[in-house]
Amino acid sequence: MESYHFLLALALILLFTKIFGIASSHVHLPQVVGALAAGILLGPCGIGILHESDFLTRTAEIGVILLMFIAGIDTDLKELKHTGPTACLIAVLGVFVPIIFCGGAYFLFFADKVSFLNVMKALFIGVVFAATSVSITVETLNEMGKLKTPVGATLLSAAIIDDIIGVVVLSILTGFGDASVKPVLVVAKILLFFLFALVVGLLIYQLFKRMEVSFAHHRRLAVWAVAFCFLMAYCAERFFGVADITGAFFAGVILCNLTDLRKYVAKKVTVALYLIFSPVFFANIGLKTDLSGMTGSIVLFAVVLAVMAVVSKIIGCGVAARICRMNRHDSLTVGIGMVARGEVALMVAQKGINAGYIDTAILPAIVLCVIVAALITPVLLKLCYVGEKKNPKPQKD
Amino acid sequence: MESYHFLLALALILLFTKIFGIASSHVHLPQVVGALAAGILLGPCGIGILHESDFLTRTAEIGVILLMFIAGIDTDLKELKHTGPTACLIAVLGVFVPIIFCGGAYFLFFADKVSFLNVMKALFIGVVFAATSVSITVETLNEMGKLKTPVGATLLSAAIIDDIIGVVVLSILTGFGDASVKPVLVVAKILLFFLFALVVGLLIYQLFKRMEVSFAHHRRLAVWAVAFCFLMAYCAERFFGVADITGAFFAGVILCNLTDLRKYVAKKVTVALYLIFSPVFFANIGLKTDLSGMTGSIVLFAVVLAVMAVVSKIIGCGVAARICRMNRHDSLTVGIGMVARGEVALMVAQKGINAGYIDTAILPAIVLCVIVAALITPVLLKLCYVGEKKNPKPQKD
Repeated sequence: MESYHFLLALALILLFTKIFGIASSHVHLPQVVGALAAGILLGPCGIGILHESDFLTRTAEIGVILLMFIAGIDTDLKELKHTGPTACLIAVLGVFVPIIFCGGAYFLFFADKVSFLNVMKALFIGVVFAATSVSITVETLNEMGKLKTPVGATLLSAAIIDDIIGVVVLSILTGFGDASVKPVLVVAKILLFFLFALVVGLLIYQLFKRMEVSFAHHRRLAVWAVAFCFLMAYCAERFFGVADITGAFFAGVILCNLTDLRKYVAKKVTVALYLIFSPVFFANIGLKTDLSGMTGSIVLFAVVLAVMAVVSKIIGCGVAARICRMNRHDSLTVGIGMVARGEVALMVAQKGINAGYIDTAILPAIVLCVIVAALITPVLLKLCYVGEKKNPKPQKD
Repeated sequence: MESYHFLLALALILLFTKIFGIASSHVHLPQVVGALAAGILLGPCGIGILHESDFLTRTAEIGVILLMFIAGIDTDLKELKHTGPTACLIAVLGVFVPIIFCGGAYFLFFADKVSFLNVMKALFIGVVFAATSVSITVETLNEMGKLKTPVGATLLSAAIIDDIIGVVVLSILTGFGDASVKPVLVVAKILLFFLFALVVGLLIYQLFKRMEVSFAHHRRLAVWAVAFCFLMAYCAERFFGVADITGAFFAGVILCNLTDLRKYVAKKVTVALYLIFSPVFFANIGLKTDLSGMTGSIVLFAVVLAVMAVVSKIIGCGVAARICRMNRHDSLTVGIGMVARGEVALMVAQKGINAGYIDTAILPAIVLCVIVAALITPVLLKLCYVGEKKNPKPQKD
């Protein structure tokens, strides 16, 4: 491979992920779907012009880390306090029911016996479908003028909390990844990580709080925030055996209360993301999605997994909402609103592949499920509100 | 090396290039000097925590390409027309006198005989010092309220033209790089590249011109402009044997007349540059700068080269200014204003190393010369205006 081939790869990835992304948003699909399709098309499964490389893998990894950092920094702790216990229960059931349903489906399909490895593999598949991608739901609700309703607010908070729970569960799984390590040591290391994040967090928070005043909108704030994110990601992996994206996520959470800084940093990081790193991340997932290797059993598994991924969120979150005394219709809406999966699912899948717990042969099934969940959410959500067309005062954002 | 070590590398590079950059701007030096120093400190020559890697090299390469794209897109063709022939002559002599002086110095020091290889090596060293980094001069002139004078305008235009000439000379050198290729073929390929750039340029210009209206300030404009830049860089190397940075530069020039798009794209690309790519580029140069390998003869060469780099621009540009009937004082000021070197010099050096024409043992001498030229320009410029303190109407920007 010539040393400058990576320039062609980057150019094609940027061009096609955007074209396909725009095309999918024209048919009211999230751009992620288009970007994944572009990756599949350019990769070995399509015209074969792109191949996996160390450079693309690392650039994609930076993309994941920055995406999780943004997810962390966008966490609105005050809003979370407001919606409180209801959102919390919805998130908890919305994480654990999918883990059981989707993990269970995997286990029934592929596990020959109950072993540590098989349980871990099933759990990883489960965690992939734990975190909701709220952006699709937000867009649909916004379009229908239902975002600024109690249901909308609860959905938003629950989606953020399920990110946090998902990340924590992922950390625990990654920690247990090495079967030779004693469980008590794993738990100790994870607890130490959160202690570390808390202590470092308080110090860094104070540091940035001072800098926020002195150097408002200085480039150095964004540069150092990103450096902090990379450092936390590194420390999480290196010293605590926790996934790097967990470190990046909490680096974001640490800074999320600094309103001014948060907006500034998020804006700048978002530019770097959409200009290079996100397209490479999504295309890279597409590259790895080897559709040609889909055997009959994997296709069947994909169908079952998709059903489980959709149903588990509706049941888990819907039941939680009912427990918290929301009415039937609202509970169903909440359940459906939480169905969408996106970036975080793909990131966890990536982690699982790296850790050896998810077979790349399964990846197409996962990608298809993410796409199905993303497709079906807006359709079902609109059906939920069909009867309410005569709503005299539709709220608009 | 662990797979996540690159996160630590990125974090340290971002942290230290910024800290050192800020420190150097506090003592009125360009931030580049600090960023280079950070790279030297972190690298094998300093505390040795960073090492060259494929990932860093490619990320640095993207940095170079985007920097040249920005240089191209910032070209103000209308301003160039205004200042016209004077700026042109200053740029031409300002490119060729340094090539002769600095290349000559290299030849006298290191060439044992007149051979194709030795002449190429000398020319490469010369081209490194061909392009002025005008940012330092602009800052100094602006500080003294002398930017919006005829001298200031001429300096700006000449610096842009010498970028273009420098890039063209570099292309020719890269083309001749392979001694086995027939010279006529090289010239034909280079001419073909410019023809290609012209034809593609006209098409792409029209395309972006339409999109500029329909999708003003849409992300897709920035994404596609960057994709176009990478594609031109790739095509230049792949099909025409021309340096990728030449392709990137002309990709920028093609878009530079679309005022709205240019500002938008430049703004977004600049964010990606300062957030990740520029720091990696400068740190990567620093990493490679092996000061410990500086023998007595290389130190002596560095001193001679620095003198040549400074003197050649003053003579070349000063004489050109005199020919164009500027007065003595203004001619001297123009000459001094063109002394500063920066990013482009380092990029050409990088190209020379990749092509095998610049020995990494020489790199410290080049880096030191760039730093010296950057340091001495503001000092000499201020001396130029010492007698004019009583200027009754100092113009302010």
